Order: sequence, then structure tokens, then C-alpha cells
Amino acid sequence: MGGDFAPAYPVHAAVEALRNFRAISRLILVGDEEQIRRELSRHGTVPADRLRVFHTTQVVAMADSPVEAVRRKKDSSMCRAVDLVKEGAADAIVSAGNTGALLAASTIKLRTLAGVDRAALAVVMPKRDGIFVLMDAGASVDAKPDNLVDYAIMGEAYCRHLLRKPDPKIGVLSNGSERGKGSKLACEAYDLLKDTPVNFIGNIEGHDLFDGPADVVVCDGFVGNVLLKSIESMARMTFKMLKEELTANLVRLSGAMLTKGAFATIHKKVNADDHGGALLLGVNGIVIKAHGSSSVRALCSSLRVAVEAVDNQVNPHIIENLARLRNL
Amino acid sequence: MGGDFAPAYPVHAAVEALRNFRAISRLILVGDEEQIRRELSRHGTVPADRLRVFHTTQVVAMADSPVEAVRRKKDSSMCRAVDLVKEGAADAIVSAGNTGALLAASTIKLRTLAGVDRAALAVVMPKRDGIFVLMDAGASVDAKPDNLVDYAIMGEAYCRHLLRKPDPKIGVLSNGSERGKGSKLACEAYDLLKDTPVNFIGNIEGHDLFDGPADVVVCDGFVGNVLLKSIESMARMTFKMLKEELTANLVRLSGAMLTKGAFATIHKKVNADDHGGALLLGVNGIVIKAHGSSSVRALCSSLRVAVEAVDNQVNPHIIENLARLRNL
Repeated sequence: MGGDFAPAYPVHAAVEALRNFRAISRLILVGDEEQIRRELSRHGTVPADRLRVFHTTQVVAMADSPVEAVRRKKDSSMCRAVDLVKEGAADAIVSAGNTGALLAASTIKLRTLAGVDRAALAVVMPKRDGIFVLMDAGASVDAKPDNLVDYAIMGEAYCRHLLRKPDPKIGVLSNGSERGKGSKLACEAYDLLKDTPVNFIGNIEGHDLFDGPADVVVCDGFVGNVLLKSIESMARMTFKMLKEELTANLVRLSGAMLTKGAFATIHKKVNADDHGGALLLGVNGIVIKAHGSSSVRALCSSLRVAVEAVDNQVNPHIIENLARLRNL
Repeated sequence: MGGDFAPAYPVHAAVEALRNFRAISRLILVGDEEQIRRELSRHGTVPADRLRVFHTTQVVAMADSPVEAVRRKKDSSMCRAVDLVKEGAADAIVSAGNTGALLAASTIKLRTLAGVDRAALAVVMPKRDGIFVLMDAGASVDAKPDNLVDYAIMGEAYCRHLLRKPDPKIGVLSNGSERGKGSKLACEAYDLLKDTPVNFIGNIEGHDLFDGPADVVVCDGFVGNVLLKSIESMARMTFKMLKEELTANLVRLSGAMLTKGAFATIHKKVNADDHGGALLLGVNGIVIKAHGSSSVRALCSSLRVAVEAVDNQVNPHIIENLARLRNL
């Protein structure tokens, strides 16, 4: 029921996902049953045997305070969906709703994985020769060096088992490339990470993010969130300016027609829709936060990532890797 | 002698600046005299009465450690140029050299302004409806809340007296818009700033940077540096992809020709060359750090900003505003 286009887009995406991903044995739509049934009726024959509707009476609004949402809106679609994961009735949750509330509900109800102090949001971002994982993209602020080590281990498992990179390179986001450069947090995380079994490649500066070697870049959630939102905002501004300028007169408009393919290719490369939203790593269960303005396609990608995360046992891998690290 | 194209570009820019900015009563080129004279000879008649060459024998390399550069390379162009400001023989220094070394030399030799604990790099960035100042863009890391208040006062003076905004709006970079959202640093800075005389508008999230109301956005130098470099890197990647795609075949190439004007307009809007580099605010003297890869045009802009900073008495304004704040 959350996000900008609920329940229409989530219901549409659910139907598409059931049709395309046979690995989904059951998809539960949690929310107002009447509204959901109405939306379902728009999509012809749906695989009803694999679809359930779980009726709830409340909705967490985008402006609700996270903790209040969890405490006061116990029968909200979001809280109930997390409950289903907690009870083992579901393996994963995908939500386009209030980010803070989803983080709060997930960490409070599901608790963190054994050995994990803090959960972190992992976001897949485009770079020149592929993609990389940025984490924490904003699950918590004022992280400690140990937290960044956990993020690295979790990001490594994500990269290896979901993104299928055989030997992911891990970097620490910093304002200088050499050891000893950076905030106290970054420097201490560097020193801890070089003694872990991950393939640690040192500091990654801002200008190496989109054109550098790192597959996973770890940072405090404050920095990650500011960075992610700034990049999104800047991309939006750039494309808005392009659109304005390219349609400013007829000559440019005809030029723009001829170059359409170029923009389509770039859009495909940098389009967040195919990357499946942000994965909250470190909790007991798979939790995916889709963008509030997610398209049906983006929500479908989130559902695909949820399936892959369950199938490829990302969480068991994380627990195993952390346990190995702690015993080193 | 620093930066990617020294001494050719700095000398060329100096000649241009002398021709265009009559307010420059004397421009001192600090570096290897022979090389500088050779470059000068390429530019026809130069206003020799307003030009001096100050011979130095050493060069701070881009890879030199900042403190070592200051200690060991006392006769470097950079150190001598800062000395000239310190001695009152110059009002301002423009350098495209090693950032860390310039910061170290400036803070060690010039010391901070009365009432300022830490200097900060102020960078002018484009936004949809104009420009804004981001600071600190990387002069120091692990700032304290008081430092962010100083940055706000300094940024305000920059904005008001150099960028000619009558009532600059000041924001704190954060990962949420409401009070109480953000890192400990951001939250404490928020609480201090709301009681200062600056026009404080609260938290600014990443997605409001390029499309929001703030004229000055303050943050820790770690965050500012990572942000600035990421944005630069992302812009570079976008334009590189555009170029590759727009020249991929003849149809697109002809389309690109027709849309040339659009790209020129956007380039002009977002081009850092006209913004004059980063101003190190908070030291006794005007210090401008131009990008290492600065064009002649960008170096000229830096010289223009130097002139404006001196003429408009940015530093006296900062001292006055800080003194007023402390007595409140």
C-alpha cells in the first residue's frame, strides 16, 4: 500500500512476476483486499493458485515517523508483511513504502543476523564498465569501524552470490586514495579490513566510484545516503536539461529524433529499474526497499532480486562468512 | 608550477587576466624564471609594468605529502607564493597544484582568521536555477558542530559579497529533511545554526542539492569531498557515454550536429570553468585552489574570483560576522 502508485503498480508487478518467475511458489499481496482485488481484475487470468491476498486495515504514510508507524500501525500492510517473514510464512518482502518505517519494522521485528550489529542498505549502481554495490545507502548513521567490516562481508556475499562476480573487490569510500587518508572512521575501517579475508583494495575516492575497480564500496549510511540521493538528483537534472534543450526548436527536435538510439542505450545502462531496489542486508529475512516512485518494471526487478536472494542463500552465506571472520 | 599544464596554462592565464582585469595592480608569477619567460614570450606584448616573475627552484609534485612539501620544499613555487601573501607582498594566491600541500602551506603559514578554528574549501556548483556553494569540500575531516557554524558564516559572506545574493539561504547537508534527522554532527550543527543570525533553512537532503532552495550547504570535509568528486566523476561518465553513443553511427552523428546548440547551452550552464575554482575560506589571505586540469579559461576565472574576493573584502566581512556571532 506504500509508494507513489499503490496498489496499482505493486499488483501489476506481482502478476507479471508470477507469470515470469516460476521460482515464486507463493506471492502474498498484503493490503486492502477490496482495492487489491479491483486491481487484480484488470490483469486477466492470474495464476491464482500461487497468489494470496492478506487483508490489512492500515497504511503507513510516507510522512509517518518510523518508530510510531511500527508501534501504532500494527495492522498496516508494511508491518503485517514483515510479520509474515518473521513467522516464516514468507521468505522475502518487497516494499515501495516509507523507507524509515520499513527499516524500523525490519530491524525491530526480524532482528539482525547472528554476528551482525547493524543492518545496511545495499544499492546497485551503474559504472562505466558494469555495476557496483554501495552500502550503507542510509540504514543507519554514525557507523563504527566494525560495522563497515560487516558491510564489506555482506556486500561481498551479495556481489558473489547474487551479482555473480567471482572475486569481488572491496573498497572503503574516502577522500584520498592512500592509507591514512580519510575520516577517523574510514581510516580505522581500512586497518580492520586489510586483515579480513575479503579482497580489500583500499580507499576509493569519489572520482573512482563510477570509473574504478571496486565492486563493493562501503561507507557510513549518512555519506551513502547523501551520495545516492545527490547522484540521482544530478542525473535527473541533467536529463531534464537535455530534454528542455533538445526540444527547444525544430532543428534540435529533428536532431534529437536521429539520436534517439543513443539516449535509449544510455538510459538502459544507467536505468535503476533493472537493478531491483535496495536490499536491506543483515536482518533475518530478505527485505527489499523499492523506490517510492518505482515503475512496474522496477517492482518486478525487486521481486526477481528477492527470489534470487532466497534461492542463492545470501543470508546463510553472510552468517557463515562472519562466523569464519570472527574465529580468525 | 603545479597542476597538469604548468607553466604554460598559468602563464597564459596570467597574461589574459592582466589584459582583462584592470583591478590587478600586480601579478606575480612564482616559479622557474627561465620556463616562465619562455612561456611569456609566446604571448606577444604583455603588460610588463604589472607583471613580476619570482624565481623559485623547487616544485611540489602532485604525489608529495602535504606536510613534507611545506617542510622540505621551502623554495617551491607554492610555498614561496604563500610566503608572499603572508608578507603582504600579495593579496591572493591561485594554484592548480597539490591540494593537500596548498591547504597545509596556507593554514600553517597564513594561520586561520580570528575566530575561525578550521579553514574550509568553498566550491561553487551549478543547480537548476543557478548556483550554490558547497563547503567544506575537503579541507579537513571529522569536523565539529562549531566548525559547521563557522562554515555557514563564511559561506554566507562568500555568497553575499562575491556571488551577490542579498539574503543567502543556508542549509545543513543531511540524510533527512526534518530536525533530528542526520548524523550526530549534522543534528548538533542544526541546533546551533538555528540560533545564529544567518538565514538558516534547515536540513538539505542529497536530492535537494541541485533542485532546492539552499544557496550555501555546509557539511564535513569528508562528505563534501566525496560528494564533489563523485558528482564530477558521474558528469564525466555521462558526457563520455553521450559522446560514444552520439558518434556510434552516421545517422546519430548527423543528429548530433543538429543538436549541437543544446549541448553547448548545457555545457555552459554546468561548466566549472567559469566558477573560479575552490576558495579556501578562513585563512589570513585569499587562497584559491584551481583544479589540477584547469583550462586557461578556468585559471582566468580563478584570478577573477581572487580579485573580487580582495575587492569585496570577504575576509573582513567574515571576521566581523564571526565577532558579532560570538558576542550574541
